[in-house]
Amino acid sequence: MKLALVGVGLIGGSFAQAIRHVGMFERIVGFDSNADSLQRALALGVIDQAAGSLAHAVDGATLVMIATPVGSTRQVLRAISPHLSHAAITTDVGSVKASVVDAAREELGSSFARFVPGHPIAGSEGSGVEHATPELFRDKIFVTTAVSDTDPSALLTVESLWRAAGCRIERMAADEHDQIFAAVSHLPHLLAFSLVAQIANDADAERKFAMSGAGFRDFTRIAASSSAMWRDICLDNRAALGRALREQRALLEKIQRAVDDGDAHTLEGIFSKASINARNFPVMRG
Amino acid sequence: MKLALVGVGLIGGSFAQAIRHVGMFERIVGFDSNADSLQRALALGVIDQAAGSLAHAVDGATLVMIATPVGSTRQVLRAISPHLSHAAITTDVGSVKASVVDAAREELGSSFARFVPGHPIAGSEGSGVEHATPELFRDKIFVTTAVSDTDPSALLTVESLWRAAGCRIERMAADEHDQIFAAVSHLPHLLAFSLVAQIANDADAERKFAMSGAGFRDFTRIAASSSAMWRDICLDNRAALGRALREQRALLEKIQRAVDDGDAHTLEGIFSKASINARNFPVMRG
Repeated sequence: MKLALVGVGLIGGSFAQAIRHVGMFERIVGFDSNADSLQRALALGVIDQAAGSLAHAVDGATLVMIATPVGSTRQVLRAISPHLSHAAITTDVGSVKASVVDAAREELGSSFARFVPGHPIAGSEGSGVEHATPELFRDKIFVTTAVSDTDPSALLTVESLWRAAGCRIERMAADEHDQIFAAVSHLPHLLAFSLVAQIANDADAERKFAMSGAGFRDFTRIAASSSAMWRDICLDNRAALGRALREQRALLEKIQRAVDDGDAHTLEGIFSKASINARNFPVMRG
Repeated sequence: MKLALVGVGLIGGSFAQAIRHVGMFERIVGFDSNADSLQRALALGVIDQAAGSLAHAVDGATLVMIATPVGSTRQVLRAISPHLSHAAITTDVGSVKASVVDAAREELGSSFARFVPGHPIAGSEGSGVEHATPELFRDKIFVTTAVSDTDPSALLTVESLWRAAGCRIERMAADEHDQIFAAVSHLPHLLAFSLVAQIANDADAERKFAMSGAGFRDFTRIAASSSAMWRDICLDNRAALGRALREQRALLEKIQRAVDDGDAHTLEGIFSKASINARNFPVMRG
């Protein structure tokens, strides 16, 4: 059987490496709009063959894994739709799910029933196929957001592959996914970008960055992420992210008043609520 | 010679351990308002003697190191002032400096010239003397914010001790310090507290925290810090922090409009400014 890997970056490459040992696929054929990435994936043995086009990549594939930045998912779906085999299962790894489900419904036609929307909660500081590792998904969560039209056997196939890659599966509705990740992923990225951008605009930016400690480095690590990818994620999830940001801004307005007024009680209330919860993260996550 | 250590937590304990080998002090006498902490510091050999009062601790000390949370610095200065030896040098480690300098000027009288305001840019996830380690300050920055009245030899003494502890010394004015650390430390803490508090208030908080990944964990690590300590830091630095927060809120308002309007260009501009800078952090820090 053939696996078509569309997008041979960190996530796609790691998935290919992780499931290679499952033995379900005789051939992993990759495609990437970046020809250099595609050649590196081939050279590294992450894929067995580099396809010259999306059509060639998906031709005859049993599973089509779309692992491009979420902003290009619709375009990919549109391009592959006419070339999908009758029984092919298509799946993705996008950080936003409602917009992807909508795009798949509109672009895939009768193949939509065999489209499984997914999102592995994993990443690393490095990007690109060079950083791919079969261990990336070990003990991580893989979220699926199937709809009532989704073929149950397609869902099970995709979930079992991610389980083989080391993931624990969580099922939820696309809207719930988008609301959760607006809060725990998209908004934090936005705040990290925003803080670093604020400091970068200061005349003494370099001195400030040079004075920063480990706490700042941790807080802003996610601000080194791809700006184009996160621009698209934020826009694809703009409804839920917009609400979460509005809520956060209301809380920051309250904190501003407390700071300006020297209101220790309000600050202590908000900080301790956060601190107690943050101390419990590892337990909840374990 | 005697070193008086007021506050035997992570920072004070680590300082005592780091400079013990310098051999300048025959005796390290500790005091802490928390009797348990004080006894643990003694049991761990971090201090040689536990003083029953602040007056006893500083009596005859050549150097008085105040390593309490910054919120109690004025109170400590007031209590020790009548008991300081004529030639004693007093120093602190507070995260805010202008308010500490003001308090020292008001509380220390003629001893103010031998007060050296300092701030080691170091910390760890653990708190308390149990986590103290002589390596805590290795290759970290120690900031001094001396004023024109500060005795140059007192300044050199304190700086040389921190250098012996592994630090690189940076001198600056207290106002500059407070402005820099409002941006790279106090505001990030405030944002981390605020984000976790927002999510903690959601009905599905537990599910959201359980779905969070490594990026969220990094971003919110500092939200596990002591809420009381950070309440005091924020209030002690309220002028500079208030300005930094106002600036951040203006930027977030701009981002909100861009998210709501689907304005990719504005988002990309802010995100890429941040991303380029964040990728260069390690170089600048190295």
